[in-house]
Amino acid sequence: MTKNYTVAILGATGAVGTRLLSQLEQSEIPVGQIKLLASKRSAGKQLQFHDQSVVVEEATPASFDGVDIVLASAGGAVSKRLLPEAVKRGAVCVDNTSAFRMDPAVPLVVPEVNASALQKHQGIIANPNCSTIQMVAALKPIYDTAGLKQVVVSTYQAGSGAGQRAIQELDQQAQQHLDGQTMTSEIFPVKGAARHYPLAFNLLPQIDVFEPDGSTHEEWKMVHETKKILLDDMDATAIKVNATCVRVPVVIGHGESVYFEVAHPEKMNPTKMKEVLQQAPGVVVQDDPATQLYPQPINAAGTTATYVGRIRADLENQGGYNLWVVADNLLKGAAANTVAIAATLVKNQWL
Amino acid sequence: MTKNYTVAILGATGAVGTRLLSQLEQSEIPVGQIKLLASKRSAGKQLQFHDQSVVVEEATPASFDGVDIVLASAGGAVSKRLLPEAVKRGAVCVDNTSAFRMDPAVPLVVPEVNASALQKHQGIIANPNCSTIQMVAALKPIYDTAGLKQVVVSTYQAGSGAGQRAIQELDQQAQQHLDGQTMTSEIFPVKGAARHYPLAFNLLPQIDVFEPDGSTHEEWKMVHETKKILLDDMDATAIKVNATCVRVPVVIGHGESVYFEVAHPEKMNPTKMKEVLQQAPGVVVQDDPATQLYPQPINAAGTTATYVGRIRADLENQGGYNLWVVADNLLKGAAANTVAIAATLVKNQWL
Repeated sequence: MTKNYTVAILGATGAVGTRLLSQLEQSEIPVGQIKLLASKRSAGKQLQFHDQSVVVEEATPASFDGVDIVLASAGGAVSKRLLPEAVKRGAVCVDNTSAFRMDPAVPLVVPEVNASALQKHQGIIANPNCSTIQMVAALKPIYDTAGLKQVVVSTYQAGSGAGQRAIQELDQQAQQHLDGQTMTSEIFPVKGAARHYPLAFNLLPQIDVFEPDGSTHEEWKMVHETKKILLDDMDATAIKVNATCVRVPVVIGHGESVYFEVAHPEKMNPTKMKEVLQQAPGVVVQDDPATQLYPQPINAAGTTATYVGRIRADLENQGGYNLWVVADNLLKGAAANTVAIAATLVKNQWL
Repeated sequence: MTKNYTVAILGATGAVGTRLLSQLEQSEIPVGQIKLLASKRSAGKQLQFHDQSVVVEEATPASFDGVDIVLASAGGAVSKRLLPEAVKRGAVCVDNTSAFRMDPAVPLVVPEVNASALQKHQGIIANPNCSTIQMVAALKPIYDTAGLKQVVVSTYQAGSGAGQRAIQELDQQAQQHLDGQTMTSEIFPVKGAARHYPLAFNLLPQIDVFEPDGSTHEEWKMVHETKKILLDDMDATAIKVNATCVRVPVVIGHGESVYFEVAHPEKMNPTKMKEVLQQAPGVVVQDDPATQLYPQPINAAGTTATYVGRIRADLENQGGYNLWVVADNLLKGAAANTVAIAATLVKNQWL
């Protein structure tokens, strides 16, 4: 008899939380009972799970009694406080925040890339940053075929990465601009920052806070998460990674211009690259200059694949290649990957 | 006695043309007479030059009789047909199209970078592509100090680069999206292309047509124009250049994420880089993470400088650096640079 799981969603009312619920509905995880947890402010709201109306409860340590799986996306501070409580009560937690990503005891997983890392979990598994997930999904088959020496990525990240209210702010700013009014800003680039700037019809080269070295924390995450996922070591020097993260006035769907040098140029060419990408799980190749086919955020939104196009060799540098990678940052970059991790745990009985 | 020049603007009614007129008003060029030339369709329109109302005339070879300086921005085909006629009549032409840029007899000039190349002109001088101008303005002082081995650039290019009608289309698409309607597209990504896609709230990794090697012509231009300007040789191998060009839903102001390796790492560090950039003509450094100061398109629009920020060393690759470069693509990337070339010719009596 198949076991039915009690699943809790922590942060159920947010931009990612509501998508965790719909992804869970579509997953192969046999859900016996669902618990929707959020802050006191959101408690009492009702959300639909299949044909069942579920009341959102305030998250407390006791909420996790009897829970088998926690899917968390309520911010790093909440995860830090509550997930250890859930683990104490026997739950396995898949966390979409950055709270535990760099903990050596916590696997950082994109299932189609490094599912086997899940086997060593100790109760908490981390979902990588949205911009990292889609990049490693595209790079993994290339890394397996010809190795990687260096990656230089520039991101074009959608406003929804800053949360549900940020989506409304972007729309509001766009309407202000079209009406000839001054755009107002309270969230972008970073909610808690001292200064706010409009994103509509603009570009903001700041995502998350600045590190002492002049990079942003988002850039830091892309460098170190990529290494932890591909090399199982966040400080490894075997692959050099350089990231520039820019917020762009798109609602859903991150774009990435990824330049890289393979370690073994003789093992790779553009045709081969297209082949290994077409065979890669979770990757959809959209690449035909003749018909102007390439990934676009408005087409990726609402789907769970990683789209790759503009595949080409650097004619000036042997072993250098370019890719253009697009994915729905709220699904592939968050909810869908989180649920896919839980489904992999269930399928392999790794809970 | 100072000579007064007869100046003709070819393509006077376009997005760049109107800006050529205002830049000429503000320049030090002593203008005796102004002629505004355009297609038959635009003939008869009136534009203001200082306190004078000037009627736009249809451009024909005879229009250039008695003209000293032609500032051209009416498309490559028009330049190819009419500029040799202007030269025949004794005019010197500064061309903002791509018609003559790769002609070895035609200097390709950003005045603060390679003004001396103007001395060898034979009647036609080319204004580089918008995305190239702002990048070489930022890279030149670094190249002079520590050399350059490799440049990897990803652009974030504004919709206005596709012309006056494209600006209207972007606004219209944004309003359609906000009203919950399907976005319609007739111009983006490329006016004459078979397929059109919305730019509002989207990203289009195609600017200009595709080359046989899978790059776009915009990317090709950035590679070869950069070399012609910095090395005086479009095919030089001394600097490897790799470009990915993406159209973003911004009205005015291109952003560029520029990664590069200097040839002599011992001659450069981030402090030194900031110093040489601060001293560089035409460059304004906006770089202070503590106060969230970095270049943004909405601040650059309407100005003629090249803004540089996010200056940082690649901690994983000695000699590697990142810059974030923003400029008004219609002014610094077009009209202001074109008029600055003409002013340099006049000032040095190189006409």
